[in-house]
Amino acid sequence: MSKPSIGFVGLGAMGFGMATHLVKEGYAVHGYDVFPASIERFKMAGGIPASSLRESAEGKAFYVVMVASAPQAQSVLFGDDGIVQNLPQNAVLMLCSTVPASYAQSVVTELQNRGRGDILFVDSPVSGGAKRAADGTLSIMAGASDEALQAARDILQEMSDENKLYLVPGGIGAGSNMKMVHQVLAAIHICGASEVMGFAAHLGLDPRVTAEKIFASDAWTWMHENRFPRMVEEDWSPGASALTIILKDVGIITSSARQQRFATPLCSAAEQAYLTALLHGWGPKDDSAMIRQYYAKPLSEVSPGADTEAATELVLELMRGVNLVGAAEAIAFARHLKVDLAQFHGLVSQAAGASKIFIQQGMEMIEGRIGDKAPAGSPSVDEAAAKLEAVVQKARDLHCPLHLGNAALNVLFMAQRHGSGGQSSTSVIKVYGL
Amino acid sequence: MSKPSIGFVGLGAMGFGMATHLVKEGYAVHGYDVFPASIERFKMAGGIPASSLRESAEGKAFYVVMVASAPQAQSVLFGDDGIVQNLPQNAVLMLCSTVPASYAQSVVTELQNRGRGDILFVDSPVSGGAKRAADGTLSIMAGASDEALQAARDILQEMSDENKLYLVPGGIGAGSNMKMVHQVLAAIHICGASEVMGFAAHLGLDPRVTAEKIFASDAWTWMHENRFPRMVEEDWSPGASALTIILKDVGIITSSARQQRFATPLCSAAEQAYLTALLHGWGPKDDSAMIRQYYAKPLSEVSPGADTEAATELVLELMRGVNLVGAAEAIAFARHLKVDLAQFHGLVSQAAGASKIFIQQGMEMIEGRIGDKAPAGSPSVDEAAAKLEAVVQKARDLHCPLHLGNAALNVLFMAQRHGSGGQSSTSVIKVYGL
Repeated sequence: MSKPSIGFVGLGAMGFGMATHLVKEGYAVHGYDVFPASIERFKMAGGIPASSLRESAEGKAFYVVMVASAPQAQSVLFGDDGIVQNLPQNAVLMLCSTVPASYAQSVVTELQNRGRGDILFVDSPVSGGAKRAADGTLSIMAGASDEALQAARDILQEMSDENKLYLVPGGIGAGSNMKMVHQVLAAIHICGASEVMGFAAHLGLDPRVTAEKIFASDAWTWMHENRFPRMVEEDWSPGASALTIILKDVGIITSSARQQRFATPLCSAAEQAYLTALLHGWGPKDDSAMIRQYYAKPLSEVSPGADTEAATELVLELMRGVNLVGAAEAIAFARHLKVDLAQFHGLVSQAAGASKIFIQQGMEMIEGRIGDKAPAGSPSVDEAAAKLEAVVQKARDLHCPLHLGNAALNVLFMAQRHGSGGQSSTSVIKVYGL
Repeated sequence: MSKPSIGFVGLGAMGFGMATHLVKEGYAVHGYDVFPASIERFKMAGGIPASSLRESAEGKAFYVVMVASAPQAQSVLFGDDGIVQNLPQNAVLMLCSTVPASYAQSVVTELQNRGRGDILFVDSPVSGGAKRAADGTLSIMAGASDEALQAARDILQEMSDENKLYLVPGGIGAGSNMKMVHQVLAAIHICGASEVMGFAAHLGLDPRVTAEKIFASDAWTWMHENRFPRMVEEDWSPGASALTIILKDVGIITSSARQQRFATPLCSAAEQAYLTALLHGWGPKDDSAMIRQYYAKPLSEVSPGADTEAATELVLELMRGVNLVGAAEAIAFARHLKVDLAQFHGLVSQAAGASKIFIQQGMEMIEGRIGDKAPAGSPSVDEAAAKLEAVVQKARDLHCPLHLGNAALNVLFMAQRHGSGGQSSTSVIKVYGL
């Protein structure tokens, strides 16, 4: 049986990889983009160029939307001579862009209002970066009706890793919510990767040696390991993952959190750091260029200092503190949104939002192993605060900004004031109102 | 009776004004500074130049220290051939620099350890800026033994406004603590002045018209009114009040808060914004140059937008929200430090930390008129959060950083989550742990 034709819009860094991977797997992919050069590049890679949205959609039983934002999705889906009016009956429409859950839900309503309730719509944002997109090993978080999920499953599976297609319970919006709470960790860890290396630089630590120690420690994050090479090489233009992308994603988080009256102090601090970098012209650069918001010179120019061991321990403590409170913020928000927490934990642990702390302490938070006296060998909120306090003071002495470190410490102080000081450090999640 | 000779060290922007004012009042002031040019300038203004610390101190029954920081104070007081070893018996030593209370207390110990317990030491930081220093109308917050206060009082009164010499109960350290909690408001409002004008610029509002509306509203702060002319004229070099000064002061606040395990999310957000500006080279400039951390072009180049009235209301709401939570943060910290709150309120209301919100809602917080249902016509925490939420969303849509607005909103959300939503907006202070 021959593979079906697929319509595809959005041939940027991620979309190009996804679409060309489908081509390699034997699908006839009709790709469109607002930039003719992107269509040309897709044609060179074996794709079928579409000269218009209409041409990309007409007669296609399957359609993938991978544009950059909800406004762009709205335009390509429902604009004049757009995708929806040109899709055949019962077509399967997969929205893979990162959008607010409320936007995905609005698409269902608009399809019905336009008499296209026949379209099998899937809310299926992706995660993993351009390389995994091209390899067909993305994480995909798909929410929809059972019928739509069944119809879309094979193609979503083609684009995702064998174990990373998550069928998220809860229907349309659930996929986007899952992606959003994953991005809470991504947003914190991307900023955190620069923050920790900036702090290390102020301390006079060799960046590569320090990064290796972080990789090998319980302070590890996927983002730190992924961003560090580009950060130290200053490989920023064009950005493999532009600052504007994570800025868009964190904006979805904080906007949704505001609608829920949910405090996200770490995400907000990261967002403000990103916005400040944007203001200074860093938007199109790779987000690993955030290092320049922490250290004014290239990392290669760090002048080595003394007492490497103690300084390295401060660096690790910064990441531990931020990762701990970041895990609490993400899990508390996920719980507030009634996201399936076991699935969330499994997904994050295998994706770009992963940290060793999330994998371990995050599971304890999810299982409710909080609030007791801290077990022997495991730190209390008081101890976590004391360690992070020493870090923040040192950074202050060095005039190193520490947006996340300060925000995390203030959350720990709030937790102390609300009675959690002697409890396990995971109980910091309670201050988020659970 | 002729006026006594006074030794004086630290002839910077503030110290020069204070010393020359004492000269005008008929005192023989022997001034020293590490910069010979400053001594020369002091001489031109009628002062008596001292060629060394020893010369400035020998035989002086009164001595004023107005250097920039605690490390500098330590050096001039106790360094080789420094002030303390050259002061006569029972001299009155006034430390007017802004230092941590713990530092002022350490001076007492060190005087005793060196056998100079005879010196009448006064912890007497000042506030008001260079102009009021030169006019002898500063606010001075003096803590010491009764004997030392009595001895120092006349000279402190010469340098301060008739109603602004505050004899702070609590002995050495109490003056510095009072100054510090005042600076909580100064640190927030200086950053806030730029934040609100940056937001107004992103909204396309005329800066001068908007500033006039702020001056005339309940969103007024002393800092906004004081900084705005320099901000709009870009009159930044040399800084009338350099960024490094408020950065030093906010560092004292956050360091002391950390020692107390006290969360100061707004001060921390302001501090990180200041540190980021420092990293980009703005340290020696006037702190009103913080506007460039919010808006990339001069305010004079703002392109006017439409719907001025609604936009102006958003601007006022930003300041109201930040000033409300800022007042709560300052008062909560002051209470935690057992600062005399009635005196604190009176002092701030007449000083650079003043805001209309602090004067009104701050008094309600101090008097404990919190926690009830919000009285008619007065906003609840829920309402304050909803208004600030609309501001933050709008700023986000415009890509305008809003360090304080976001931090304040997250504090309000925390207050909601901890059960204060329906209560008077002043009850936000409870989330600080009181």
